[in-house]
Amino acid sequence: MAETTKFLLSEDAIPTHWVNLLPDLPGDPLPPLNPQTMAPAGPPDLTPIFPMELIGQEVSGEPDVDTPAHIYYKYEGVSPAGSHKPNTAVAQAYANAQAGVKKLTTETGAGQWGSALAFACSLFGLECEVFMVGSSYDQKPYRRSMMQTWGATVHRSPSSLTQSGKANEGSPTGSLGIAISEAVEVAAQDPESNYALGSVLNHVLLHQTIIGQETIAQMEMAGEEPDVIIACVGGGSNFGGLTFPWMRRKMRSGHGPRFVAAEPAACPTLTQGVFAYDFGDTAGLTPLMPMYTLGHGFVPPPVHAGGLRYHGDAPMVCALLKAGMLEARAYRQNETFEAALRFARHEGIIPAPEPAHAIRAAIEEAEAAKQAGEARVILFGLCGHGNFDLAAYDAYLAGTLEDPEFSQSDMDAAIAALPEGAPALG
Amino acid sequence: MAETTKFLLSEDAIPTHWVNLLPDLPGDPLPPLNPQTMAPAGPPDLTPIFPMELIGQEVSGEPDVDTPAHIYYKYEGVSPAGSHKPNTAVAQAYANAQAGVKKLTTETGAGQWGSALAFACSLFGLECEVFMVGSSYDQKPYRRSMMQTWGATVHRSPSSLTQSGKANEGSPTGSLGIAISEAVEVAAQDPESNYALGSVLNHVLLHQTIIGQETIAQMEMAGEEPDVIIACVGGGSNFGGLTFPWMRRKMRSGHGPRFVAAEPAACPTLTQGVFAYDFGDTAGLTPLMPMYTLGHGFVPPPVHAGGLRYHGDAPMVCALLKAGMLEARAYRQNETFEAALRFARHEGIIPAPEPAHAIRAAIEEAEAAKQAGEARVILFGLCGHGNFDLAAYDAYLAGTLEDPEFSQSDMDAAIAALPEGAPALG
Repeated sequence: MAETTKFLLSEDAIPTHWVNLLPDLPGDPLPPLNPQTMAPAGPPDLTPIFPMELIGQEVSGEPDVDTPAHIYYKYEGVSPAGSHKPNTAVAQAYANAQAGVKKLTTETGAGQWGSALAFACSLFGLECEVFMVGSSYDQKPYRRSMMQTWGATVHRSPSSLTQSGKANEGSPTGSLGIAISEAVEVAAQDPESNYALGSVLNHVLLHQTIIGQETIAQMEMAGEEPDVIIACVGGGSNFGGLTFPWMRRKMRSGHGPRFVAAEPAACPTLTQGVFAYDFGDTAGLTPLMPMYTLGHGFVPPPVHAGGLRYHGDAPMVCALLKAGMLEARAYRQNETFEAALRFARHEGIIPAPEPAHAIRAAIEEAEAAKQAGEARVILFGLCGHGNFDLAAYDAYLAGTLEDPEFSQSDMDAAIAALPEGAPALG
Repeated sequence: MAETTKFLLSEDAIPTHWVNLLPDLPGDPLPPLNPQTMAPAGPPDLTPIFPMELIGQEVSGEPDVDTPAHIYYKYEGVSPAGSHKPNTAVAQAYANAQAGVKKLTTETGAGQWGSALAFACSLFGLECEVFMVGSSYDQKPYRRSMMQTWGATVHRSPSSLTQSGKANEGSPTGSLGIAISEAVEVAAQDPESNYALGSVLNHVLLHQTIIGQETIAQMEMAGEEPDVIIACVGGGSNFGGLTFPWMRRKMRSGHGPRFVAAEPAACPTLTQGVFAYDFGDTAGLTPLMPMYTLGHGFVPPPVHAGGLRYHGDAPMVCALLKAGMLEARAYRQNETFEAALRFARHEGIIPAPEPAHAIRAAIEEAEAAKQAGEARVILFGLCGHGNFDLAAYDAYLAGTLEDPEFSQSDMDAAIAALPEGAPALG
């Protein structure tokens, strides 16, 4: 891996003036010419198309910005892969490289995790093989290109390369559960390969706690305490990463913010799932985990928030929900894109569909505070950009974005197929 | 515009540990279960797919990174629009909003500039109308979606909406020169609209000098002086922004780095153009500018570095080349993508095709230093990411990327059509 150091400028070191080199140019600067007269063109020649201030700047200079606001967001989209996922991908690739592993296999939904792992593997010279959920593979082809640019091999899941893939060849969209089965199966059969998971497990959530720690320091800089902290939940690593350091603080001090987990109404694990031991994947190759689940055989509708299309959730997040320490809310696809567009036009950042769920919840919190006539400090996690989700924005702008509903009967069937023999959870 | 403040953490405030919430969870944590035995699963159940260090982290924690290196790059791709362009787009939109203008029109090549202006207009409530060069409009559809997400209207250029577009309807690819004509024409006819240019003009280069000033401060932090500074050149704003503050320093002190301008061999303005007064656009609507030019009628081949497909260059950059204060080099499309891929796999950032030209030059400089057996400090501008250029990476990886050549006869014809009546330049 190339060694890299960044030299970050603090806010007070950011330039406050522009450098005008015009007076320093060699010789006298040649004037522009009026195209009709061929005489030197002056400010009057430019007023039809430029404002006077910019015309004036063809000789001088000036700067900008300030703040109030009780809505804060932590943005993770400036990483090379575009989300918070490198926080754990780099740590996992490093641990595997140190252990002498040659290749990592993984699943990816929308592609944020697969991109992050492909990026991390390229840094440490590891091979990377990714099973990408079919619906996302079709919706976001350039996520695949991105992974390949970093040297990874990418398969559409379900694939014909594994038993788990073949067993699910009838699924047109695939799911994270199926893709996990495929990746685990490949890793388990090759002694030089390991598997890497982008969420759910304790060590993955652990790596993401960087996010929450930074926000504690940043809210101190802002001189405010959040009343509520919001994050979207798919497998739980983004939610856990942002909230766990705050939760520990709250548990130890006895007071602190409320926590809100935002999920898609098409895959409402925390709001409608049952608390039970279930497999992490569709084929039943992983350990059973105690979690809220829609059943490991449940295949969510193909919403664009591919990273949230998971039947279960991190056991740690589920335990906290069970204990009443967080609140879960589910949102429909169109209302999340409405929130995403509003955010993009106000803040300039185009969010991925996953954190658009958190934005939706943040807007609700802000509106509730306004109606209650009370101040409220809201912090939410903006875990990734939507540069590879613009086909979904196109559809939303054209009014053709689907708004799929959750199928209670599909869940009932999947719950009926929960593994037997595991202890019941109360 | 929403007011925003960022709370940046300095390097020494970045967390050095992860937060392990496991011991703080309510109650005793429920163990995962072995799927065969339904007994609690321990580390041995996980070794086929995870390394011991990560298995251990299902209970504990650890961190990473360091530097040497004489190659530095200034990365501008983390802005919402993905390049350095917002440095001037925000300043221009602000100046126009202050002047009471309601709408800005502009051209865009690869879409970096159009995206930046759409973003900036959304911040200040201005309408934005973009003429996007045909070849890029076809190659990078999601740049269009991005502009529309920010509320802009986007047309493929040449369009049938303007006289300039109709006059060039035979051009299958379009060019920056044609798109500029269309945007200027629309702005000039509407008293509430102004035109905004993303490069070439003095005030645009002025706004970009933020880049060079920051690198002066950052190189001080690094404790090194660059021997050579490299940037790609299309219209010259990225090159001028990075180099002008260093040039002024060199002019005043009498010593300083060499400067290298990297351009595409398919559109070699600085290396093969003539120094003459020429129009900035194809239709001849702009003032004439003293610059190196391939002729305002020259239509460059459709290389993916759409931002570099311009027949001329900033008069200030041209004056510096004329005075011998910088060196220009031209590179073919495939060799720039080879450099881009090498960079992506080493550094993790996928560069836009435009700065890939600077990366190519930086690699040449590094190899020359190695052969000469001498130390050399190289600084280059990485002005944008390639998230919207992955179709080009796909083609390069598949071995099908075109490597178009410059047409001397097309340039000769275009030069023969230079405007008459302007003073000859020596």
